[in-house]
Amino acid sequence: MAETILKSKLRPSMNKETNVFAQKHIVSRDKRGQVLGQNGSGFRGCTIWFTGLSGAGKTTVAFALEEYLVSRGIPAYGLDGDNVRTGLNKNLGFAPEDREENIRRVAEVGKLFADSGVVALCSFVSPYIKDRDLARQLHKEVGLPFFEIFVDTPLEECERRDVKGLYKKARAGIIKGFTGIDQPYEKPINPEVIIKTTENTVSECVQQIVHILMEHGIVNQAAADLVEELTVPADLLENARAEAANLPKLEINTLDLQWLQVLGEGWATPMSGFMREREFLQSQHFNCLLDQGTINQSIPIVLPVTTENKEKLLKEEAITLTYNGEAKAILRNPEFYEHRKEERCARQFGTTNPGHPYIKMIMESGDWLVGGDIEVLGRITWDDGLDQYRLTPKELRARFREMGADAIFAFQLRNPIHNGHALLMTDCKRQLVERGFKNPVLLLHPLGGWTKDDDVPLKTRMEQHQAILEDGVLEAASTVLAIFPSPMMYAGPTEVQWHARSRMCTGATFYIVGRDPAGMPHPDPPKRDLYEATHGGKVLGMAPGLNNLEIIPFRVAAYDMKAKAMAFFDPHRKEDFDFISGTRMRGLARAGETPPDGFMAPKAWKVLADFYQSLQSS
Amino acid sequence: MAETILKSKLRPSMNKETNVFAQKHIVSRDKRGQVLGQNGSGFRGCTIWFTGLSGAGKTTVAFALEEYLVSRGIPAYGLDGDNVRTGLNKNLGFAPEDREENIRRVAEVGKLFADSGVVALCSFVSPYIKDRDLARQLHKEVGLPFFEIFVDTPLEECERRDVKGLYKKARAGIIKGFTGIDQPYEKPINPEVIIKTTENTVSECVQQIVHILMEHGIVNQAAADLVEELTVPADLLENARAEAANLPKLEINTLDLQWLQVLGEGWATPMSGFMREREFLQSQHFNCLLDQGTINQSIPIVLPVTTENKEKLLKEEAITLTYNGEAKAILRNPEFYEHRKEERCARQFGTTNPGHPYIKMIMESGDWLVGGDIEVLGRITWDDGLDQYRLTPKELRARFREMGADAIFAFQLRNPIHNGHALLMTDCKRQLVERGFKNPVLLLHPLGGWTKDDDVPLKTRMEQHQAILEDGVLEAASTVLAIFPSPMMYAGPTEVQWHARSRMCTGATFYIVGRDPAGMPHPDPPKRDLYEATHGGKVLGMAPGLNNLEIIPFRVAAYDMKAKAMAFFDPHRKEDFDFISGTRMRGLARAGETPPDGFMAPKAWKVLADFYQSLQSS
Repeated sequence: MAETILKSKLRPSMNKETNVFAQKHIVSRDKRGQVLGQNGSGFRGCTIWFTGLSGAGKTTVAFALEEYLVSRGIPAYGLDGDNVRTGLNKNLGFAPEDREENIRRVAEVGKLFADSGVVALCSFVSPYIKDRDLARQLHKEVGLPFFEIFVDTPLEECERRDVKGLYKKARAGIIKGFTGIDQPYEKPINPEVIIKTTENTVSECVQQIVHILMEHGIVNQAAADLVEELTVPADLLENARAEAANLPKLEINTLDLQWLQVLGEGWATPMSGFMREREFLQSQHFNCLLDQGTINQSIPIVLPVTTENKEKLLKEEAITLTYNGEAKAILRNPEFYEHRKEERCARQFGTTNPGHPYIKMIMESGDWLVGGDIEVLGRITWDDGLDQYRLTPKELRARFREMGADAIFAFQLRNPIHNGHALLMTDCKRQLVERGFKNPVLLLHPLGGWTKDDDVPLKTRMEQHQAILEDGVLEAASTVLAIFPSPMMYAGPTEVQWHARSRMCTGATFYIVGRDPAGMPHPDPPKRDLYEATHGGKVLGMAPGLNNLEIIPFRVAAYDMKAKAMAFFDPHRKEDFDFISGTRMRGLARAGETPPDGFMAPKAWKVLADFYQSLQSS
Repeated sequence: MAETILKSKLRPSMNKETNVFAQKHIVSRDKRGQVLGQNGSGFRGCTIWFTGLSGAGKTTVAFALEEYLVSRGIPAYGLDGDNVRTGLNKNLGFAPEDREENIRRVAEVGKLFADSGVVALCSFVSPYIKDRDLARQLHKEVGLPFFEIFVDTPLEECERRDVKGLYKKARAGIIKGFTGIDQPYEKPINPEVIIKTTENTVSECVQQIVHILMEHGIVNQAAADLVEELTVPADLLENARAEAANLPKLEINTLDLQWLQVLGEGWATPMSGFMREREFLQSQHFNCLLDQGTINQSIPIVLPVTTENKEKLLKEEAITLTYNGEAKAILRNPEFYEHRKEERCARQFGTTNPGHPYIKMIMESGDWLVGGDIEVLGRITWDDGLDQYRLTPKELRARFREMGADAIFAFQLRNPIHNGHALLMTDCKRQLVERGFKNPVLLLHPLGGWTKDDDVPLKTRMEQHQAILEDGVLEAASTVLAIFPSPMMYAGPTEVQWHARSRMCTGATFYIVGRDPAGMPHPDPPKRDLYEATHGGKVLGMAPGLNNLEIIPFRVAAYDMKAKAMAFFDPHRKEDFDFISGTRMRGLARAGETPPDGFMAPKAWKVLADFYQSLQSS
């Protein structure tokens, strides 16, 4: 829409304006491309023409596509019998010349919508090639994109559906001249998309069209929810490795490699590599990337380098990133900029306290950052017996598809699961089922990258989570347990946005947020949380660039001593609730004692107890 | 647009959808209202119908309104003869029944655009009341707003303009049935707006319509660029003072009073008072307010209170803010929340260093913040002989109007003006004139609130600025010298957004940004700037919520020893340039020496020299 004035194809007089206002407009347009909330700055006007028999599913697919586009900030509007035959075309009947005029007018209105920057979705049987070709021609003349979508549902199926009972009436001779019965339907010869509603779900049909729209730049990668992997495809790997062998090298550490995996697998789509300064500043000041629409990116994903390495590599066009000497990725067009650590930590963590373990690592890292496009040389694995849990966003999407999930809700965790957590997850599922979802699937997604020393190690956590599933506390059949490869930052409200946003890549549309997410104790006395316990949920609820994710906030769960179970805390009978802290849990585990009944499934507790006791004995 | 699916009046079937997707949509709609970049979450669809004689100015005003709306993120599209007569209605002639059908179809298309959430701007002579009433009726039936705008330009004037030569042809009888010549024009009886193009400028006509659109919630305050003053009107002041006298009191300090003035005069429009926690969190994490569209608000405007005062006032519904015991404002519906100083400073300044003078004040302020709606009890003045320079945004707008400004460019400063600054301003003006502006006016806008001790005091700066104007370095006739009441924060890239955003309230559409804006030295050794010198300009250039402001970046100016004048630094002959630091300037002034020729106008230099010498003698 923003481009209306400049790009109108139908009002050339506006484009010729050379007065001061027109000039101002040009300038501010460039700015508007970067305004938060717009999915990119491109002009998206076009007409999508759905043709097919009555009952083929044209309007159903068009509605779903409209919803898809609108929810991603791309203006779209559907034209169909409902809103056209009762208004603009109410003076037209069903005689051949009226039918032709009906289609002509719709095409002209579609053209006006397209010219205004809207995606016009026209759903009409439009049985004649001639009429549809006219519609196409009208758009072609003025340079507006036109897509013909053939909704190719067999007559028998349409007749079987017969939603409006029209086929019955046509067969009975009550309706005359009904397409498919006593009037021909001329199939499109060369439509842009052919849709088979008998073979594909509505959402798959939408994806088919979105794919074409992407090719024409009408939907961008971010809006299409596509995962952009930065891993070199298998068939190009040998060449890439050969190139990497001859490039100057930069050795990276384990933390860097974890971030490289995050980038490579597409968790930070559409980022093309380690942040350049422009992206870094956007992330620091606005918690978003702004150049392809508004994409939440609250935490910087950056690669620190020492001054020595910077000086050495400053003029290189490509660098090989190595880990323990092994080539892991090529970084192209490097951009070096100052690693302003104090300022970075202040903006990312809300503190510069070096007692914070991630801040400590930043302070000890290189004085420069290097941004650049990344090509990861094959899948990154860790050979710790857990690689089978490290599913990429694409693999998770495939898994959810196989499971027939119609809603995916994600739960981020870095701690053992007690029944309070389980309560949030089962309650979230209950809510989704109540809202009409048939098969909600839980993505149980423990963080697998760096964590601070006193957190339970990943291996133990995975055993514990597996035990929870085996104990039946969470339903294994509707749960996917997988590892999120990101390091933990303990950056509270800033980090929780990252946790939510990255899960959107898996197709998750619901995200559970509890109390004090991504928090930790303040490094300095007095004893207190580093972040206010409600800020994470509040900030996440307001965060821009998470359009397709619904945040499900939960109140805190505690041990209900009366019910002998974890329950949502009820302030009216607070005396019944026991908040079992991590410290107390660890104490019980170490002492070989068992926690109160209903706090944690027994098998899962045993995993924990064994771990803490092994710590003591070692 | 985002509301299409839910609010379509023309496709009730969509609204009745009760499936899972529809429900999801409802939820995400609530979120989308807060998505950055949208000007509020309301549905804006409506039709604005311009009627009037050929040549009356319908399309001119409609184009200007379209530009106005689109540049504020409100989708709008114009329908007129250009794009309708050549397409949709090309099968219609000018016979009476064709004219009627022409208007009917346009009305129906306007209705579709309105239903899609777009502001449809229809510009047609539409001479008959009956036809226009039908258009109105079609909208009324489905509950879509319709506005009739009578562009009331006298026939003589239209004929005098005769842009397309049609009147000449009509008078000559070449065109038959021309409205106003040999066909009647039926004036609207009760139009929503009557526009007089002979008495008002295009922009004033646009404002008339915007005013009506605001009343109907189609344009919100922020999009209308209105300044929302929080000062109690004179006629209510007595009552308000009487109420204030009986409320519990909270004494505020000078800094708080300066912020109160900022709020009261509307520099932070549309903020209704000191920030509540929700606004505070948005400002801290996203540098924007998000609840009424995206409004840049990078710095928190908050009121700290001590724990003692918080406890005392916790349950009050209204509080009187006093300064030196004098009632200055009423704060309603107070919301107390924790003043998390470390986190606040980290996010606002990128450092928590208490050697930073503004951070020091924050650290010494109350442990709580109180947000709430503000009513300022009359104009805030300082009785320092400078109040006449303290113009409110509304007063500045009036001044610019009187001066006939067609572009306003703002220059923020807190230092004496040397010829380098003047160079930026004159060059900016040159650029604007080159771009076609006839009368660009400079808002020379020194900051008048708190500054650190070693900055030159406001009084001296104002004398120096006045001397610059008297010396003719800047053209007095096209310059407004006024004081911006905000305190200085020395918060670099975060603060520069505030400096730019607040000036939008004055109607400024251009903002000059130089090197290291709002910067200062790092409080700790080694000697360096606290902020990277280019970050301010870079961040400002990317900042969301500044849609109507064009940022004019400048490279650094230095003393060109060859030219004996300040000039833009040319790195190819850097040996010719002398960077005269503030320290050196002060040294020269104190020593009674004169700076190199062309560095500063002599009269202005004398003001400075006198000031520094008086410092020495005292």
